Amino acid sequence: MLFKELGDDNVTEERRISMAVIRRLPRYYRYLGELLEKGVNKISSKELSEKMNVTASQIRQDLNNFGGFGQQGYGYNVDYLHKEIAKILGLDQNYKMIIVGVGNLGQALANYNSFERRGFKLVGLFDVNPRLIGMSIRGLEVQDVDKMEAFVKEVGVDIAILTIPKTRVKDTAERLAQCGVKGLWNFSPVDLFLPEGVHVENVHLSHSLMTLAYKINDTQEK
Amino acid sequence: MLFKELGDDNVTEERRISMAVIRRLPRYYRYLGELLEKGVNKISSKELSEKMNVTASQIRQDLNNFGGFGQQGYGYNVDYLHKEIAKILGLDQNYKMIIVGVGNLGQALANYNSFERRGFKLVGLFDVNPRLIGMSIRGLEVQDVDKMEAFVKEVGVDIAILTIPKTRVKDTAERLAQCGVKGLWNFSPVDLFLPEGVHVENVHLSHSLMTLAYKINDTQEK
Repeated sequence: MLFKELGDDNVTEERRISMAVIRRLPRYYRYLGELLEKGVNKISSKELSEKMNVTASQIRQDLNNFGGFGQQGYGYNVDYLHKEIAKILGLDQNYKMIIVGVGNLGQALANYNSFERRGFKLVGLFDVNPRLIGMSIRGLEVQDVDKMEAFVKEVGVDIAILTIPKTRVKDTAERLAQCGVKGLWNFSPVDLFLPEGVHVENVHLSHSLMTLAYKINDTQEK
Repeated sequence: MLFKELGDDNVTEERRISMAVIRRLPRYYRYLGELLEKGVNKISSKELSEKMNVTASQIRQDLNNFGGFGQQGYGYNVDYLHKEIAKILGLDQNYKMIIVGVGNLGQALANYNSFERRGFKLVGLFDVNPRLIGMSIRGLEVQDVDKMEAFVKEVGVDIAILTIPKTRVKDTAERLAQCGVKGLWNFSPVDLFLPEGVHVENVHLSHSLMTLAYKINDTQEK
């Protein structure tokens, strides 16, 4: 995302926000949401830093990427900041999602209702397994994956969650890319290289578990 | 992890590897494992870089953190590098794991068999739900969470997978920390701050989905 801002010499500059900062935003969003639920309307970077266990200077730096939002001596307006982060992340929009692969993990994700509250609406479930086709989860019937492309085009699906065996991922991802899906949330241990305009976010569970093993063995790491 | 190495002036130096590098190692490990399966025994950083879609210089920099492994004009010995990365990550050891919370996600993780191949052995399942207690998954019976602490101490559990509602996470994590668990793999949208010696790795699914929303909206991002 490019942000226009006025530089020191009043010339409009465009800056690129690093993905490292972007990846920290959902955490701010979560904490600010919890504060709102508790009726907290303003917070200083120091208080927020104590809650989140990051330095106040990190918080100021991160939020300064988007023009700041904070007022000297007042702190942050929680509701405003929460809404602005939502806009930056694109959470002010709605997304239609399908799940491809309704095994254990696919079923687990289908049963999450917290995604829907944030605008991610599950609209379809697909599998190849005849024993799963026809089964119903939260009011959605599992369909044959052969019907996936027609469905995606007709309904205008934005995001496909891929919880399928790794041997099928590449082919399925390419089919989805061709019929207009914009984002793939991939849970298989495979890296996808797709045409421009199709975005991939991976959840590599085994990578995460290996990182935990590293931490356990790294006696220097807290 | 601290690595001792000889500096230019032959003085032993200790260097700390950044977590950013560590988090890239599982991906190297996965690619090298795939090469081994195909019978590939050596690879240049250029070839590896093309496969992994990262720059060759990034690969050389990352692996130089551990003393290199590569030989000029030869490339990397795949088997050796694979084994060395395994050692760094602690994958040359075995870990006993339990799952606390055997809902959909817990069951999905219990059914993964790929973790076991890497030395992460599932030894127990726990839940509060009477309807789940007594149920069997891959030969393990779901036990009442009241029996968790005694089990952890008796069996010597290393890692607990937390797939429980967020309201229960803090309390459960503290109980596990007290009875000697070294690592918590936490799937709840809660940050855990635990005593030194207990390591946490989070899988925040909602953060990942929000990042995907960002990517979809960021027309500059590939």
